[in-house]
Amino acid sequence: MPSTTAAQSRRQNPGSQSALRHRNQQRIVACLLNGPSTQAELARQTGLSTATVSNIVKTMVDGGLAATEPTTSSGRRALNVRLTGKGTVAVGVDFGRRHLRVVVASLGHRVLAEESVGLPLGHRAQEGIETAVALVDRLLAQSGLPRSAAVGAGVGIPGPIDRRTGTVAQGAILPEWVGINILQRLEDALKMPVFVDNDANLGALAEVTWGPHGRTDNLLFLKIGSGVGAGLIINGSPFYGNVGITGELGHATIHEHGLVCRCGNRGCLETVASTTTMLELLSRGEDPPRNAEDIVRNALAGDSATLRVVDDAGAAVGRALGNVANLINPEVIVVGGPLADLGDLLLDPIRRGLIRHAVPVVGESTRLTMSSLGDRAEALGATALVFQHTGIRAT
Amino acid sequence: MPSTTAAQSRRQNPGSQSALRHRNQQRIVACLLNGPSTQAELARQTGLSTATVSNIVKTMVDGGLAATEPTTSSGRRALNVRLTGKGTVAVGVDFGRRHLRVVVASLGHRVLAEESVGLPLGHRAQEGIETAVALVDRLLAQSGLPRSAAVGAGVGIPGPIDRRTGTVAQGAILPEWVGINILQRLEDALKMPVFVDNDANLGALAEVTWGPHGRTDNLLFLKIGSGVGAGLIINGSPFYGNVGITGELGHATIHEHGLVCRCGNRGCLETVASTTTMLELLSRGEDPPRNAEDIVRNALAGDSATLRVVDDAGAAVGRALGNVANLINPEVIVVGGPLADLGDLLLDPIRRGLIRHAVPVVGESTRLTMSSLGDRAEALGATALVFQHTGIRAT
Repeated sequence: MPSTTAAQSRRQNPGSQSALRHRNQQRIVACLLNGPSTQAELARQTGLSTATVSNIVKTMVDGGLAATEPTTSSGRRALNVRLTGKGTVAVGVDFGRRHLRVVVASLGHRVLAEESVGLPLGHRAQEGIETAVALVDRLLAQSGLPRSAAVGAGVGIPGPIDRRTGTVAQGAILPEWVGINILQRLEDALKMPVFVDNDANLGALAEVTWGPHGRTDNLLFLKIGSGVGAGLIINGSPFYGNVGITGELGHATIHEHGLVCRCGNRGCLETVASTTTMLELLSRGEDPPRNAEDIVRNALAGDSATLRVVDDAGAAVGRALGNVANLINPEVIVVGGPLADLGDLLLDPIRRGLIRHAVPVVGESTRLTMSSLGDRAEALGATALVFQHTGIRAT
Repeated sequence: MPSTTAAQSRRQNPGSQSALRHRNQQRIVACLLNGPSTQAELARQTGLSTATVSNIVKTMVDGGLAATEPTTSSGRRALNVRLTGKGTVAVGVDFGRRHLRVVVASLGHRVLAEESVGLPLGHRAQEGIETAVALVDRLLAQSGLPRSAAVGAGVGIPGPIDRRTGTVAQGAILPEWVGINILQRLEDALKMPVFVDNDANLGALAEVTWGPHGRTDNLLFLKIGSGVGAGLIINGSPFYGNVGITGELGHATIHEHGLVCRCGNRGCLETVASTTTMLELLSRGEDPPRNAEDIVRNALAGDSATLRVVDDAGAAVGRALGNVANLINPEVIVVGGPLADLGDLLLDPIRRGLIRHAVPVVGESTRLTMSSLGDRAEALGATALVFQHTGIRAT
């Protein structure tokens, strides 16, 4: 089911003339991506009035996004409109627990500007939003583009999004963000259409757009980080289910009477396999690791406690994935997140768990691989989300 | 992804002229369902040659499936073709471990004939197929229809179907059927296009076609019987994943070191919640139940051991469903199979388990209900499969 987040936002903010105008401009841009067109033809294709088309084209020409030249159509004088190539970038924003990454990308999958900055742990949503807006403006400026050059911004949040309300639902890695209508807040601040999604969903989308899995119909992207979450590509598109909360694999029950999880249940996969848990388990040793990078370094250096913790986490992840594979039988499972550099040290126990818990023909036929997009996956997926929602497809 | 089983069958059996002819006839039928049409128009719409169209129309008229009358088209004489309403039935066959049900249904969801017969436990596939063919012929005859009146037969098998080969994969409730190319065997015997699917998948399809869930985009049908299996409707269509084996919820791990399952793993949901397991657990009591009907009767009569076994099975099913809901967030979960008459005695513990193991917003928003189609769900779904594959949609 196509997401209706943007449509919901329109409903919630019916008075936003600038958003409406931007949306109409996108429809015109989408038409022009097929080649130059007359204003009359644009009106016919978009269903907009000729006055609206003429108005928007004028603004686009003034902003350098489009150019016009006289022509004749059916023997009458007309104005031919073409894109200058400036108005077809998308902004991707990836919010983490302590970082923020922004990407400005053109149609055709070229990154024009990109930067990642730190965020204080436990920051409030408003703080994160302000930092994001400043960074978006800076990167657009670096690329020599005005804000209006962006068709929209995709935003990844490390938590479930309730698509009925557009708010961050309980269970987010950022508890300070729960209940915030992130969509509305960002749209007000960025003054462009905003599309919000869960970070793991964007990772999945990135794998089939920016990554090597473009021909894969059914893919699961598993992000192992401070939390554990998955994004689903089903029949070639991100899958959102009923209320928008899918891929909550971090809360699959692994031990019925295990540790209490932040979601309120017990023994969830996250209580066994997140980097948070791994750091806690390793905190009793000498010179304990402080972050995921330390875990990777120590494991690659052969530290036995780290190797054991990684192996146990992988086996638990594999068990959960075995049940997932039995249910939806994906072609590919891609593992991403800050532990990706562990390579086979993490993939091997995951594969073992998967084979052990999936029915044989499913286990054997499911491809398991590490993400090649690293920590850029979510922000890149966020730009793909914009192109997807605005009907502008990369070629 | 649309299933390609029928197409695969065509490839495996390229010389089957009668199947090809039947397929062409279906395309013509599909056109005529929109209303009468000239032969020239039928040729244009189907891409078939006018000679082929004329040939097939003649056979249809001879068989009483279509009628023709002279007309004029663009001032030229032409032949108008209309359906007599006879050529649009589908056959549904549901194979169980010890039963076989056949339904003959018309487009528009009317059952013309239906019968269920017993099959010996441990019967060979050939035996089941022969019984099915005889019953299909008998029911068609009862309805006053020749075999050629059927656009095809849908067939449900209680086991996973590997769509790459069209064979029953390991893990089937009918071990004697494993490795059999059921599609080919049935097509040879019935001499009509055959579409094979897992029984739980057909149950899911029945819920959104014959059942009350026609407007549901994402639904899971859980069949609790001798085995436990699920069928998925995703974005309005049956979902088959990569190799066709989805919804294998019976093999979700519930107890890491539980009983050994027929799939080779341990502690699968089936080892806790199938009627087979329930009957085994209750075999130690006085006057032990012999089948699912006995379990239902004893539970409704208030037998405490039966109630406890049902409750424990329900809780385990609910736990597995909690993980499923976290992953794909369906709107509705429908429980079917021979225990459906237990009603809330079974639904309550399932709901408890679901709420307990799903993330809160998912657990609260997932509707859980008993199937209203009873033991007819799979056979009805099988007829829907035929109409779906032949592009003929019920109105």
